[in-house]
Amino acid sequence: MRIRVVNPNTTRSMTLAIEQCAKAVIAPGTLLDAVTSPTGPASIESHYDEALSVPGLLTAIQQGEADGVDGYVIACFGDPGLDAARELATGPVLGIAEAAMHTASHLGRGFSVVTTLARTMGRARDLAERYGMDRFCLGVHACELPVLALETDPRARAVVTQACRQAVEQDGSDAVVLGCAGMATLCARISDDIGVPVVDGVAAATLTVQSLVTLGLRKSGRGEFASPLPKPYTGALAHYELGERSGRR
Amino acid sequence: MRIRVVNPNTTRSMTLAIEQCAKAVIAPGTLLDAVTSPTGPASIESHYDEALSVPGLLTAIQQGEADGVDGYVIACFGDPGLDAARELATGPVLGIAEAAMHTASHLGRGFSVVTTLARTMGRARDLAERYGMDRFCLGVHACELPVLALETDPRARAVVTQACRQAVEQDGSDAVVLGCAGMATLCARISDDIGVPVVDGVAAATLTVQSLVTLGLRKSGRGEFASPLPKPYTGALAHYELGERSGRR
Amino acid sequence: MRIRVVNPNTTRSMTLAIEQCAKAVIAPGTLLDAVTSPTGPASIESHYDEALSVPGLLTAIQQGEADGVDGYVIACFGDPGLDAARELATGPVLGIAEAAMHTASHLGRGFSVVTTLARTMGRARDLAERYGMDRFCLGVHACELPVLALETDPRARAVVTQACRQAVEQDGSDAVVLGCAGMATLCARISDDIGVPVVDGVAAATLTVQSLVTLGLRKSGRGEFASPLPKPYTGALAHYELGERSGRR
Amino acid sequence: MRIRVVNPNTTRSMTLAIEQCAKAVIAPGTLLDAVTSPTGPASIESHYDEALSVPGLLTAIQQGEADGVDGYVIACFGDPGLDAARELATGPVLGIAEAAMHTASHLGRGFSVVTTLARTMGRARDLAERYGMDRFCLGVHACELPVLALETDPRARAVVTQACRQAVEQDGSDAVVLGCAGMATLCARISDDIGVPVVDGVAAATLTVQSLVTLGLRKSGRGEFASPLPKPYTGALAHYELGERSGRR
Amino acid sequence: MRIRVVNPNTTRSMTLAIEQCAKAVIAPGTLLDAVTSPTGPASIESHYDEALSVPGLLTAIQQGEADGVDGYVIACFGDPGLDAARELATGPVLGIAEAAMHTASHLGRGFSVVTTLARTMGRARDLAERYGMDRFCLGVHACELPVLALETDPRARAVVTQACRQAVEQDGSDAVVLGCAGMATLCARISDDIGVPVVDGVAAATLTVQSLVTLGLRKSGRGEFASPLPKPYTGALAHYELGERSGRR
Amino acid sequence: MRIRVVNPNTTRSMTLAIEQCAKAVIAPGTLLDAVTSPTGPASIESHYDEALSVPGLLTAIQQGEADGVDGYVIACFGDPGLDAARELATGPVLGIAEAAMHTASHLGRGFSVVTTLARTMGRARDLAERYGMDRFCLGVHACELPVLALETDPRARAVVTQACRQAVEQDGSDAVVLGCAGMATLCARISDDIGVPVVDGVAAATLTVQSLVTLGLRKSGRGEFASPLPKPYTGALAHYELGERSGRR
Repeated sequence: MRIRVVNPNTTRSMTLAIEQCAKAVIAPGTLLDAVTSPTGPASIESHYDEALSVPGLLTAIQQGEADGVDGYVIACFGDPGLDAARELATGPVLGIAEAAMHTASHLGRGFSVVTTLARTMGRARDLAERYGMDRFCLGVHACELPVLALETDPRARAVVTQACRQAVEQDGSDAVVLGCAGMATLCARISDDIGVPVVDGVAAATLTVQSLVTLGLRKSGRGEFASPLPKPYTGALAHYELGERSGRR
Repeated sequence: MRIRVVNPNTTRSMTLAIEQCAKAVIAPGTLLDAVTSPTGPASIESHYDEALSVPGLLTAIQQGEADGVDGYVIACFGDPGLDAARELATGPVLGIAEAAMHTASHLGRGFSVVTTLARTMGRARDLAERYGMDRFCLGVHACELPVLALETDPRARAVVTQACRQAVEQDGSDAVVLGCAGMATLCARISDDIGVPVVDGVAAATLTVQSLVTLGLRKSGRGEFASPLPKPYTGALAHYELGERSGRR
Repeated sequence: MRIRVVNPNTTRSMTLAIEQCAKAVIAPGTLLDAVTSPTGPASIESHYDEALSVPGLLTAIQQGEADGVDGYVIACFGDPGLDAARELATGPVLGIAEAAMHTASHLGRGFSVVTTLARTMGRARDLAERYGMDRFCLGVHACELPVLALETDPRARAVVTQACRQAVEQDGSDAVVLGCAGMATLCARISDDIGVPVVDGVAAATLTVQSLVTLGLRKSGRGEFASPLPKPYTGALAHYELGERSGRR
Repeated sequence: MRIRVVNPNTTRSMTLAIEQCAKAVIAPGTLLDAVTSPTGPASIESHYDEALSVPGLLTAIQQGEADGVDGYVIACFGDPGLDAARELATGPVLGIAEAAMHTASHLGRGFSVVTTLARTMGRARDLAERYGMDRFCLGVHACELPVLALETDPRARAVVTQACRQAVEQDGSDAVVLGCAGMATLCARISDDIGVPVVDGVAAATLTVQSLVTLGLRKSGRGEFASPLPKPYTGALAHYELGERSGRR
Repeated sequence: MRIRVVNPNTTRSMTLAIEQCAKAVIAPGTLLDAVTSPTGPASIESHYDEALSVPGLLTAIQQGEADGVDGYVIACFGDPGLDAARELATGPVLGIAEAAMHTASHLGRGFSVVTTLARTMGRARDLAERYGMDRFCLGVHACELPVLALETDPRARAVVTQACRQAVEQDGSDAVVLGCAGMATLCARISDDIGVPVVDGVAAATLTVQSLVTLGLRKSGRGEFASPLPKPYTGALAHYELGERSGRR
Repeated sequence: MRIRVVNPNTTRSMTLAIEQCAKAVIAPGTLLDAVTSPTGPASIESHYDEALSVPGLLTAIQQGEADGVDGYVIACFGDPGLDAARELATGPVLGIAEAAMHTASHLGRGFSVVTTLARTMGRARDLAERYGMDRFCLGVHACELPVLALETDPRARAVVTQACRQAVEQDGSDAVVLGCAGMATLCARISDDIGVPVVDGVAAATLTVQSLVTLGLRKSGRGEFASPLPKPYTGALAHYELGERSGRR
């Protein structure tokens, strides 16, 4: 089984850290690699960034299909391009917000999300609703650290840990969901520090994809998530035009 | 007042038809033009198409800002890139699904949506929920005509009219919302034929934008829809990198 | 096009102020007048007042039909008698709460409502739910000024402005909806003072009605909002008995 | 204990029938009478009728307060004027839709409503939502008999019974709620005929009021349902102006 | 008419107090007794306790059927075993949370629940949702007194009263629902002390059952709540195996 | 890692089949066994059966804790005793309805549930709501085969397959969830026959538990799901009384 994690934040050091977190949880026999999106923003912190991260993500998915990848993880908490990626891929595709929220819902009555900048909080709430997880999502909180500062700011762990602690207290929640792929490396230590389960979406999504592939579950190939219809594409993105073959899949 | 309609379907004949429909309803003194997105799919009929229509749409919005446009309409019923466009634009941006559904909600207890291919029905339902319009949206129906066939297939009007008539009967609805910008030209005749109000989102969104500009209403400039933060962009989309000026707006 | 604003608060000075606010936003060629309801309470601040404002409102609507009015605005934030007025009128009828909430929903993720007395807050929440706007309505706040004090109390603007400022901060909202027709004259100055878009329902409803008339959209004439059936009326309200003609419309 | 049933349909024969149904279920020691509203429509079958039935209902409530009535039932399935009546009355006021739906919710997973004309179905759904009973309300069905035909049309029982039978089958429901006070006399025989519990709101509301009075439960006297504030009333309804005393209650 | 209150908390002194509260509200001619569950926890304060209280409750219901009981009240605010009891019983079965919440919903816009230990708050919220009462349930609060301390701790009334007072203030609620059968004896005095209606579920459920029996309303005998199918039971609970006769009822 | 599947249906042959399905999907290094509940009904097809299956299930969980089990699966689609089991267990406990619904939600816009007897459909809908999965659950369907007939009736596979095929067509769903642990062995062949992904909850829950244990995620040990408080238990179930040690965990 081959799983690929795609990081739509075009920052290689972040991709490497993510790859380590994902590799730490896979079962014997599962192969996993992480790739950086070939084009797009260095970090995703706005709807603009998110929209412009999707073409690169889709390129990575198409490359994955050529490479025989069995399932994918999208390593950004906005789950950018998830629906489009599901149309392209033969196997399962999971977003890390999706997987983290579902996972946390098994741990008690509800969880808090701790994200980076406050401007991303609305997107987290949208996704909670989309996945049916709004009844478990007791609060969304920002620590106001930019994504890339998670790697470089020496205070990062302390700031995120403090935000997690406050979130649990304020929401009366049973678990914390980390709202950024860049927080994956902090997960275990924050959980130890605050004494509450903390869910990293990268690891959660990797195992969810592994489970789906093990179960032989993939989209049925018809309906809303069938392969996109081939048609003319123009301008700078004309190379995204799909041939007839993809349309017949 | 200058309003611009952006057609993210990269088909110029469709843009011209849309422009006529929009111009037919504006008030004296309002200037309006319609532009075709510079890059992307000829028509939008999948999540893949929709995702790849957004970069071209954002280019058009940035051009609009340079041109001093006061408000925008996104002329695709999936409302692609709406959140990102709101971050970029100073004035209001409306999607045609958004405007059509809100408008139809004033006409009775509920409306039916009639869209093109069945695979787009899920997106229509997602948007109805997002806008709070799911309580008014009594059904989503597909007529299984592709977007571009609306212009070229001689049966198009008959097929869409029949789908509208069946939708009203099946749902017990008070109005029909046309689920594609390419249906704008059919609106008045279908309404005459079926004896029920029919809402075209292009005209509805144009008037909603005109009203918002008249009222002086635009985003507050802070929070989730503030201008995107400037940051490095890499690869083929590197020209979307925003300068410091945009970041300070 | 003729639009009529009906003020169900039977206070003429308030009607004049409302008329000015509405006239300030209409398009060239639109005719607009505002009328005071012929009977009912001087101001509407309870369910009792609201219920007893409706007969006068319906008289005004019937007069409007005789005068050839194309669309109506109900100038009270409880939207009293909206369903009944829609049965009577041939053209569109909008309540100011309805229009204000829909309008504010286009400005960001959510709005706060600032109303007069606390006892009217429940009604505002009911209406938000009815219109599907509860997902955008992040809070309802009272400034505890009676309706008529908005005209006479010299502190009125300061009190309402302060309530708006606190509401935005507490709710994290992107806009404010003013919860009383009597606040219409304050709208622009409050927005300037607090730096956030503020929506007055009188102006918003006027433009929404203007748009619906421009689009040729009116109820279909059958079903729940068809003309009321004629039948005997007894007692003091016997003059509301409708003749056969109305029943056949 | 004195309970009064107010029939806002101004048809005395209907009031008498309702009184009999209510008297049949009260406990020893409870006094009950039914009164016909002093003004308004002979039957309530539109939003217009409903709005114009409320002033007469409120007159009846005020008379009841003068008579020392302990609790009230509003005998129309639209529950007209319920909020306003609660402001006026010292004791509990129940609508028959409210009581019937709550009662039916105890009988299984869900109920069907069978009402008179199709145009009243929307109101039934609105009330189900308001009372939190939409999760139990599996369907609303019309038998297309006008209210007054329930007394006069010899086919009435057969038509309503057939509609109930079909509703149960179609919805898979565990009970039927009769959607009109005029159906109260049919309740027992329909239940016998279709073999499913049938709930008449008049009897249900009478017992709910009796229970609330027995429990000593009445509104707290402050907040949204406190007595209306006194203020000037003008025109034909000027006699509804409340004196200071009511305002202080 | 015979009503039986079953106390699934196996503490006889509590049952006696409950019986007194229930007897105080029944109508002349209604017979009522309260029984203690034959097996299970002395008090119910966890999901574990609740699950293990159900077999004893079901034994009591079966005994009641043999005794010709017409309706039952389950005297624990978790409403344990309600669905199963409804399958067994011929007449109505009400839980005290169910009855209290429905009753409180008639008193205004919303109520607060005051319960014993914080760990039971989740169950109260679950039930509010199940009964459609979450829109009326403005808050759930714990006073952190164990169930049995309500009888023995001299501070009990003061602690619960204070929690009720704070709940009303914090939630802006119109009524309080007492979240434990053991609080029944405190109801009247707390209401007097805080000046807001307080609902005890034991009394509320007793009267709701009395009303249902008076109305002749019981389950239809088919579908989800029909008698359980007979089948083999093994192990310590083998005596719960039902004979053929029950299966045919 | 040790995972234990508990079958609360006291039928050993069914437990063996379940064990095989679970063992087929675990990762190398995971140990798994399945145990039959020591007491309760041979199959679970009513609320009565379900309630009476819980004590046996809890005995099995307590035995598991003594045996050092890391995580549990409850192998009945009603997820009986889930909350109580979570209080007892140190590691994660998953119900098969819970796991199957979450898993199916990743495969498209929605799934159909196909269950055994129609009387269990309500419980499936309750669980979908509880887990936030009602937005994905497009329909619940019964094939009217009793649980134990799945093993013995030669038509079983054909009947279930046909019900699955009809469900997908009627609901327009992207996947089927099998609504009984006894259907686990049929999963792969039904999926092959109908060409749509089919989810067996036993396998899904096994992998979800394996993932949670791998991630080190377990309840935080405080709040609603902390160990039950020790207290006296009386009667036939007195042996469920917990000692002090459990209370302190």
